[in-house]
Amino acid sequence: MTYKVPIDLGDRSYQIVIGSGILARAASYVALPSAAKALIVSNRTVAPCYGDSLRLALASRYSSIHEVLLPDGEQYKNWEHLQSIFDALLHNRCDRNTVLFALGGGVVGDMTGFAAASYMRGVPFVQVPTTLLSQVDSSVGGKTAINHPLGKNMIGAFYQPRLVVCDLSVLATLPPREFASGLAEVIKYGPIADPEFLRWLEDNMDRLIAQDPDALAHAVRRSCEIKAWVVGQDEKESGLRAILNFGHTFGHAIEAGMGYGVWLHGEGVGAGMVMAAELSHRLGLVDGAFVQRLRLLVERAGLPTKGPVLDSADNAGRYLELMRVDKKSEAGEIRFVVIDEPGRASVRPAPDDLVRDVIDACCA
Amino acid sequence: MTYKVPIDLGDRSYQIVIGSGILARAASYVALPSAAKALIVSNRTVAPCYGDSLRLALASRYSSIHEVLLPDGEQYKNWEHLQSIFDALLHNRCDRNTVLFALGGGVVGDMTGFAAASYMRGVPFVQVPTTLLSQVDSSVGGKTAINHPLGKNMIGAFYQPRLVVCDLSVLATLPPREFASGLAEVIKYGPIADPEFLRWLEDNMDRLIAQDPDALAHAVRRSCEIKAWVVGQDEKESGLRAILNFGHTFGHAIEAGMGYGVWLHGEGVGAGMVMAAELSHRLGLVDGAFVQRLRLLVERAGLPTKGPVLDSADNAGRYLELMRVDKKSEAGEIRFVVIDEPGRASVRPAPDDLVRDVIDACCA
Repeated sequence: MTYKVPIDLGDRSYQIVIGSGILARAASYVALPSAAKALIVSNRTVAPCYGDSLRLALASRYSSIHEVLLPDGEQYKNWEHLQSIFDALLHNRCDRNTVLFALGGGVVGDMTGFAAASYMRGVPFVQVPTTLLSQVDSSVGGKTAINHPLGKNMIGAFYQPRLVVCDLSVLATLPPREFASGLAEVIKYGPIADPEFLRWLEDNMDRLIAQDPDALAHAVRRSCEIKAWVVGQDEKESGLRAILNFGHTFGHAIEAGMGYGVWLHGEGVGAGMVMAAELSHRLGLVDGAFVQRLRLLVERAGLPTKGPVLDSADNAGRYLELMRVDKKSEAGEIRFVVIDEPGRASVRPAPDDLVRDVIDACCA
Repeated sequence: MTYKVPIDLGDRSYQIVIGSGILARAASYVALPSAAKALIVSNRTVAPCYGDSLRLALASRYSSIHEVLLPDGEQYKNWEHLQSIFDALLHNRCDRNTVLFALGGGVVGDMTGFAAASYMRGVPFVQVPTTLLSQVDSSVGGKTAINHPLGKNMIGAFYQPRLVVCDLSVLATLPPREFASGLAEVIKYGPIADPEFLRWLEDNMDRLIAQDPDALAHAVRRSCEIKAWVVGQDEKESGLRAILNFGHTFGHAIEAGMGYGVWLHGEGVGAGMVMAAELSHRLGLVDGAFVQRLRLLVERAGLPTKGPVLDSADNAGRYLELMRVDKKSEAGEIRFVVIDEPGRASVRPAPDDLVRDVIDACCA
């Protein structure tokens, strides 16, 4: 069974195709614009598993298919490695029609997307996400970026892919910690947008953990649909789209504070969602039972429910400092995504004292 | 007298304001969105002359105004120096509303524009071009970029400024070679779009060289209007906009072949326009008298009318090689802007043998 989720963004519209084994099928790519050359960007972990399959699926469409392999890890999501994509494009005399394929997780997708946005001021690209996290989050919505030593995703572009191919069968080879990290973004869509999906997750978390194909297909599809609905209304993140960052304000502080790569993105978001739910509770928006529901779901997904201590002298101060330089903050004011009721979120500032209490209560 | 040229690009529309002494007037900037912080990006040649004036004009609008100075020259239009803009933005905790001001020529404008396009995936920016070249060309149309060791402007974005302030009085301090280089882009607009402007240039070249204020105002305004008309129809350079590259295919080869900075951009374009006119003639499109008219105009502007010899063994081969990696080429096929008749241009490939003859005839 193959699902198609349309992303409606005018002349930048595209489709997300979801199914098992579809990465290796030439039919998955027929809608792409014609070009002589393709460049597959992948990493040294993913390419040995799926590089040949993708190359074979594309062989009839492109007369030359080049490849760039990046090292595997968030710490390589920087200019130096982005440059290696530009080097490959120029050394192979790739023109403006060359199609870039991002075969890998969020790091590969973000870097390939930003390279595609910037090479000759824009060439087409395709996402072939191979992690659960990138299938349900980073491959949808057109955010591309690299990190700066002073902040994550600080340099990038809004740039839409021409196609996203989510092959569910590749998730079987994912390390359990990576898979759990992806579940954090799946869980997120319930509290912010869909109380029914939140209940479905509570009923089906064990099936998801076991990678039951039907459960997985539903979770990925519903996640993409919700993200597509949000992004379709607010492509450039001027308003509504910010709710997708539920758990991310605290989560980014955790990632940055621990040093990128120590906590996985989804692990930071897992603990961050519990903190954001606790903040919502202390703001009088949701009851304590909701916080407990979310904490349990995060725990069942195999994710941390408490944030790490980043500074034993002034832990809350360190979190606040890190959150203030986050690019969602405005004029130094931190914008928190809070849950107004299960299935509905909004963005607002919060008093420092209250945030400090939340951090003190939610870190260990 | 202040002129306003509207650039109509839907929700990315903006105005070019043209006049004498307007850089230093607070009134020039009233239409900008409000923000707490501004960052002026300039270079070590321009900032000592106009940095304080701009800062004063902006003082009432922004509570903090930061500054980054780049070294002066095309060879610094690279990632390393782009990074210094990001460093300044992050060190000063600039948020998404921070307005960037590009105070300088094309290099400063291109780098500031690309930094603004990429910082947090896009912040507002204003062009305050201080060279004739940047006033009539690079500040209009939203092309931003940095160079790659293997090619000029290979990495960049289409990103529109919120405002362009063209102060004609700053041109008086421009070195004569820089001023002449700007005239190349002014001349360009005649052959590609406006035979009447071409005649006006032939009648008024001496006044322009003498920087007569009225002549200068007319030339800058008409250049911006023509560019605005072209860009308004084809923002992303899928078709018509390519005619703005008249003379640039040969010109870029000259710049790259000599090493960036040896020939000024407008010098390459000057010789390149004569070569492109000669090619148009040999393709049977225009008569020899037109080539002669253009050659004379380029010469009167103080620009070279012949290209340099890039390789004494196979000069034409070297030009062809350089032109094939230009980002306007498609699948290795070079796209030339040719003049169909004075005031009308189009883009097409040409036989290698014919191009070789043109290069042989036009280099010394």
